[in-house]
Amino acid sequence: MNRLGVIIVAGGTGARMGAKLPKQFLLLGGKPVLKWSIEAFENAAPQAEIIVALSREWDVSPHKACAGGTTRSESVRNALATLSTDCELIAVHDAARPLVTPQLIKRVVQLALKKGSAIPVVPLVDSIRRVEGGAEDRDTLLAVQTPQIFRADILREAYEKSTENYSDDATLVEAMGYKITLCEGERRNIKITEPIDFQIAETILKNDRNQVQISTR
Amino acid sequence: MNRLGVIIVAGGTGARMGAKLPKQFLLLGGKPVLKWSIEAFENAAPQAEIIVALSREWDVSPHKACAGGTTRSESVRNALATLSTDCELIAVHDAARPLVTPQLIKRVVQLALKKGSAIPVVPLVDSIRRVEGGAEDRDTLLAVQTPQIFRADILREAYEKSTENYSDDATLVEAMGYKITLCEGERRNIKITEPIDFQIAETILKNDRNQVQISTR
Repeated sequence: MNRLGVIIVAGGTGARMGAKLPKQFLLLGGKPVLKWSIEAFENAAPQAEIIVALSREWDVSPHKACAGGTTRSESVRNALATLSTDCELIAVHDAARPLVTPQLIKRVVQLALKKGSAIPVVPLVDSIRRVEGGAEDRDTLLAVQTPQIFRADILREAYEKSTENYSDDATLVEAMGYKITLCEGERRNIKITEPIDFQIAETILKNDRNQVQISTR
Repeated sequence: MNRLGVIIVAGGTGARMGAKLPKQFLLLGGKPVLKWSIEAFENAAPQAEIIVALSREWDVSPHKACAGGTTRSESVRNALATLSTDCELIAVHDAARPLVTPQLIKRVVQLALKKGSAIPVVPLVDSIRRVEGGAEDRDTLLAVQTPQIFRADILREAYEKSTENYSDDATLVEAMGYKITLCEGERRNIKITEPIDFQIAETILKNDRNQVQISTR
């Protein structure tokens, strides 16, 4: 695999996350959520350079940490400054998506190598409407996941030219005039936001363990 | 509670659901998904008149069944023809949402009584983009759940005037010029669409049982 830099966004200064321990540090299947995210990249791309943007004292060795910002974009910006300049591709991943599979990471990497950018998306299940009123055609919309992976020069250029905050790197890169390539995400790659998501994630992990057991018999 | 009619949409003729046994008839916690949906309404509104639109031979006694249509709207239309004409409110619920709580049903009923219509909505967790390209502001969108509850005359009028198929009754009623009132839905009120949703639903049920156990000690 070509040289891959990975930015794992694990929360800002607390302004965004609230006063309590952010979700990405809580235990899931006996391991912090953040550690699951890191390990998925270690498995998918053992040679990758991983930078974790976070504001708490937290040991991420053998990987590097950088300071989380007051906004998500500031966190990514800090990580870009820390990351080696010889990475060909850069992946940005939410720490709160611990169930990303190495298969998905590899798929997005391969597509980004070919196309310059790639992001995983999944169809929406519920009907969608505007807060202000009016239905939206669900089939014209997609839910966007991470990792979002870009050619390094494109992502760096986008962050150099923009000072706005984006909740989503693809949106920023697209605003710079680049085309974003979509790839099939995974329903299991959920973003942990509420207590119910922890239970769901535990169930998915338990199911993973059962499947491994069956396949090794 | 004022007289409530409940339409539970449990699948059409199979064109929509595919050849295999539709999800709403599979077992969840030892009980068919459809039965969970029916029981939620029995608990929330014991006096309600419940009609299940379905195309399979399936015993829904003491409730009434009507034929499922080739489209969702046709199923609702058939159920409206079967439902007594003295219902003041009519609730339409997807059978594939078995984890709806009696509390949510009561909340939507109360609001529909006051406002003429009410539907449960939840915020979106993932970033959203258009299939055709371009980001959408997630904060301007909402995911729509069921039950959707309407004053009977409004829902009947909407179905009399329209011949189109709608995946969502609120959209139809809104197209007729009526205002839809939004109420807070529940993250647990998921729509079962894929195998992973069954696992998630089982987890939520297991958690319910644990909570009940603790509270009755």
